[in-house]
Amino acid sequence: MPQPDHVSIYDLPEPDALDDDTRRYFEICVEKLGMVPNVLRTFSRNQEKLRAFSQYYNTLMLGPSGLSKLEREMVAVVVSSANRCFYCLVAHGQAVRRLSGDPHLGEMLVMNYRVAQLSERHRAMLDFAWKLTTAPSEVVEEDRGALRAAGLSQDEIFDLADVVGFFNMSNRFAIASDMMPNAEYHALDR
Amino acid sequence: MPQPDHVSIYDLPEPDALDDDTRRYFEICVEKLGMVPNVLRTFSRNQEKLRAFSQYYNTLMLGPSGLSKLEREMVAVVVSSANRCFYCLVAHGQAVRRLSGDPHLGEMLVMNYRVAQLSERHRAMLDFAWKLTTAPSEVVEEDRGALRAAGLSQDEIFDLADVVGFFNMSNRFAIASDMMPNAEYHALDR
Amino acid sequence: MPQPDHVSIYDLPEPDALDDDTRRYFEICVEKLGMVPNVLRTFSRNQEKLRAFSQYYNTLMLGPSGLSKLEREMVAVVVSSANRCFYCLVAHGQAVRRLSGDPHLGEMLVMNYRVAQLSERHRAMLDFAWKLTTAPSEVVEEDRGALRAAGLSQDEIFDLADVVGFFNMSNRFAIASDMMPNAEYHALDR
Amino acid sequence: MPQPDHVSIYDLPEPDALDDDTRRYFEICVEKLGMVPNVLRTFSRNQEKLRAFSQYYNTLMLGPSGLSKLEREMVAVVVSSANRCFYCLVAHGQAVRRLSGDPHLGEMLVMNYRVAQLSERHRAMLDFAWKLTTAPSEVVEEDRGALRAAGLSQDEIFDLADVVGFFNMSNRFAIASDMMPNAEYHALDR
Amino acid sequence: MPQPDHVSIYDLPEPDALDDDTRRYFEICVEKLGMVPNVLRTFSRNQEKLRAFSQYYNTLMLGPSGLSKLEREMVAVVVSSANRCFYCLVAHGQAVRRLSGDPHLGEMLVMNYRVAQLSERHRAMLDFAWKLTTAPSEVVEEDRGALRAAGLSQDEIFDLADVVGFFNMSNRFAIASDMMPNAEYHALDR
Amino acid sequence: MPQPDHVSIYDLPEPDALDDDTRRYFEICVEKLGMVPNVLRTFSRNQEKLRAFSQYYNTLMLGPSGLSKLEREMVAVVVSSANRCFYCLVAHGQAVRRLSGDPHLGEMLVMNYRVAQLSERHRAMLDFAWKLTTAPSEVVEEDRGALRAAGLSQDEIFDLADVVGFFNMSNRFAIASDMMPNAEYHALDR
Repeated sequence: MPQPDHVSIYDLPEPDALDDDTRRYFEICVEKLGMVPNVLRTFSRNQEKLRAFSQYYNTLMLGPSGLSKLEREMVAVVVSSANRCFYCLVAHGQAVRRLSGDPHLGEMLVMNYRVAQLSERHRAMLDFAWKLTTAPSEVVEEDRGALRAAGLSQDEIFDLADVVGFFNMSNRFAIASDMMPNAEYHALDR
Repeated sequence: MPQPDHVSIYDLPEPDALDDDTRRYFEICVEKLGMVPNVLRTFSRNQEKLRAFSQYYNTLMLGPSGLSKLEREMVAVVVSSANRCFYCLVAHGQAVRRLSGDPHLGEMLVMNYRVAQLSERHRAMLDFAWKLTTAPSEVVEEDRGALRAAGLSQDEIFDLADVVGFFNMSNRFAIASDMMPNAEYHALDR
Repeated sequence: MPQPDHVSIYDLPEPDALDDDTRRYFEICVEKLGMVPNVLRTFSRNQEKLRAFSQYYNTLMLGPSGLSKLEREMVAVVVSSANRCFYCLVAHGQAVRRLSGDPHLGEMLVMNYRVAQLSERHRAMLDFAWKLTTAPSEVVEEDRGALRAAGLSQDEIFDLADVVGFFNMSNRFAIASDMMPNAEYHALDR
Repeated sequence: MPQPDHVSIYDLPEPDALDDDTRRYFEICVEKLGMVPNVLRTFSRNQEKLRAFSQYYNTLMLGPSGLSKLEREMVAVVVSSANRCFYCLVAHGQAVRRLSGDPHLGEMLVMNYRVAQLSERHRAMLDFAWKLTTAPSEVVEEDRGALRAAGLSQDEIFDLADVVGFFNMSNRFAIASDMMPNAEYHALDR
Repeated sequence: MPQPDHVSIYDLPEPDALDDDTRRYFEICVEKLGMVPNVLRTFSRNQEKLRAFSQYYNTLMLGPSGLSKLEREMVAVVVSSANRCFYCLVAHGQAVRRLSGDPHLGEMLVMNYRVAQLSERHRAMLDFAWKLTTAPSEVVEEDRGALRAAGLSQDEIFDLADVVGFFNMSNRFAIASDMMPNAEYHALDR
Repeated sequence: MPQPDHVSIYDLPEPDALDDDTRRYFEICVEKLGMVPNVLRTFSRNQEKLRAFSQYYNTLMLGPSGLSKLEREMVAVVVSSANRCFYCLVAHGQAVRRLSGDPHLGEMLVMNYRVAQLSERHRAMLDFAWKLTTAPSEVVEEDRGALRAAGLSQDEIFDLADVVGFFNMSNRFAIASDMMPNAEYHALDR
């Protein structure tokens, strides 16, 4: 049984059935990334939702923030590790390898972020991300205090909470949809 | 100590510091709902994010779907119950009371959806929402099969996964931000 | 499907088949509360047990104690929240609303007590109640020490342990019996 | 450090400070059991509560029921095993050894009831007791159905729920109070 | 149904079908212990594995170490308590009773080690054993630091990790194999 | 902070302080694998234990068995995934990639084996490995029955239980020891 063999559980529209803006968006993906990520192909079943998802994602992960792009990807991977989301671990694990230039860091965050040697700031961010993901009902003021003690500003806490939230959404959408990552991710930045 | 006394942990911009479209959006909220929900006031700290969040939310919860608006709100409450998100339980518990005209149903979904007498379709939807929320890594094909057996179409499974995902995001953003629901919700539709 | 439609899973005796003291007890309930709580109607299937249950309950919740009646009800609600007992959350959530005059406090304790702004004494009591309910095997001397540090006396710790224990009993009896709360509770003290 | 060295965390009244009925009750304990169980000595700090506790206990465990006394003790041990309550495991483990005449059965129920070879009725009772103890919020109609399929009547389900509830209470009271079992239990009925 | 009635789920070789060294080994067991422990009889199905298991076990539990034999057995019991392994709790609970001369200590470690009055060194060892058994992914440098603070050397931490690991292996092999302890253990050293 | 930078938490003997057989063993490792795995270097702190560990490992993973070497490695990875053991996931994830020739399969088993498309035999083996690892106390006859229904013989169940047990041991030893995998593993068989 060759692994994997499908995009997700849904029937998807043919490329030429897509709206013009979606087609253009997918062409840009191919240019920049060499592929259309399967999450976008899956969302193309409902292009209104694809637009909303992409706008949210791009603002969150590529927009201005006190959290660097690498930091946002590190959080994405740790959330996805807690939830064991295959799609997001493959796609964002590669992003950590690429942005950090440290493939071992990517693997550590995928497998168990606690073994990584991290700055106090990163440890605080990832501990918070883990708890907010796995035990949201138990998050209390002390947990926010630990972020502040590690130097995070109000805006950085806002953005951290947003990234943790977003991947708790996309992990679940991907898992429910049996979404498979594009095969290209695996070999990149090893 | 009167409860509650704040919107969230962030300093928020004064109304007249907001962009025109945000100000108009908030005015519409007041007209239609009698208030600006505190989640929107919180997001107004970053209006680019507010726009993305609102577009996602409106498409998801108010747009066309095989899931009725009540069904989407029922899922929102059960996800929020699993995560024990005070903000979302208050706001969306009220929505279930309003849309169903059955205040006891709202309370049951807030407290423990398993005690409610539900159709097979609703039981399947809420069981899936609970598992995808609390044990995402354990969701397997049998779980999707249970949705199909209860009559859900591909589009309905897509939308269900999306609603479950979204409230796993907003629950965590609200909890991390210590976001308090507007006091108005409590007494409505009792 | 109107919610709810039954007292519990058991066939119950007709009112005039009850012993005299039970009948008098139920008349007093109607006078004072406007109803016979369904937990008492359920226990009337075994009147020897009804007497034992009522004696325990009245001594515990209404008798003299260093814990105020409101404090005992707050603990009852937090235990019931941990166990997600619909019956007890409805009945004792109303008691907290009534005794505190603060409906938001009642809702917070039902949904997630950690969001409430509490005195150090109340925080310590409710943290202990939560842990003793959800992880009894892990309670150690440090946990008792936290109660003492918050000023609780030996008698107050005794009574706190007793209230936590009692609602862990009644929650389970109610859940096993699919016991539904009287509809009257919902609208009271909103 | 010899184990154990105390009754519980509370200062307890001297024997001659007790009310007459309590003193008589304790004398009967010594006659019949060879000791005053430490749970009763602990409750003697509040004799009103001691009376309520004893009445509940005696009705539950010694009164008429479709569940045999051994069955009620088996349930008591399995609940106490789930909660890892040292006091109740020692005291009621001995009761199972005595009533069953099978010391290995007592040990199995203390350590892991799943390894015991049990009748369908007993398996169903203990599976229900375990779930109602460890995951009360997840108990649903199917669980009650399994009891009925194993032949339990309404009265037997009522009494089973009551026993499970009671030991969830007494386990927590004992743990919170650091209550130690009387040393006599250990060697009996080996 | 008399308890227990089998060695494990496997068909086992007749004594005279065993290799000479195994036969001699079993004769020594009878001489020294009065029985061939059922774990060895079970492993005799694959004598190459029996040899490897015995060598590992004897080096670990009987060889030189900074941890006394009693300390190693205490760890064995606490690991087996966490995993609720009937075989190992019976066999090693007896070892703790024998080596400590304190039957109550044996029972406490079987049922809930947290109630025992322990030296700081033993508390630290058993807390570490419990966490490494039940939440291995969450073990971090602070946990190792607590061992060092209690005076454990590098060699003692090495041996502690090894004992915890070993019983996590043998517990799972015993449980998977439905392995029953020899009946002789029960009455010894009470 | 370059990742990783140490073998484990222990001071290790210099190569020329090792016994002759250990030195020869390590030379063979370098010849065959291109490195001395860090688990062996760590165990060289106690060469008697190194011998016992190596004999157990080699019999288990390289000896004759109804489970193929790939199947044993698949089980090793799934156990290590459940326990989130960085060392074993890196080392045995590589083994699955090499033996299967399918790098995606290796990644799936590391991240969440449930997304892989597996034969009924492999699904049954891995489901059993997961449950025996994460909830050993709940393993019952039905779980063994599922293995038999998938065609596993007594010897295969014996070996499966042994592999699951062994990696529950080595995962915990590695985690407790903060053992880092050799950097070479990462790039192999991608």
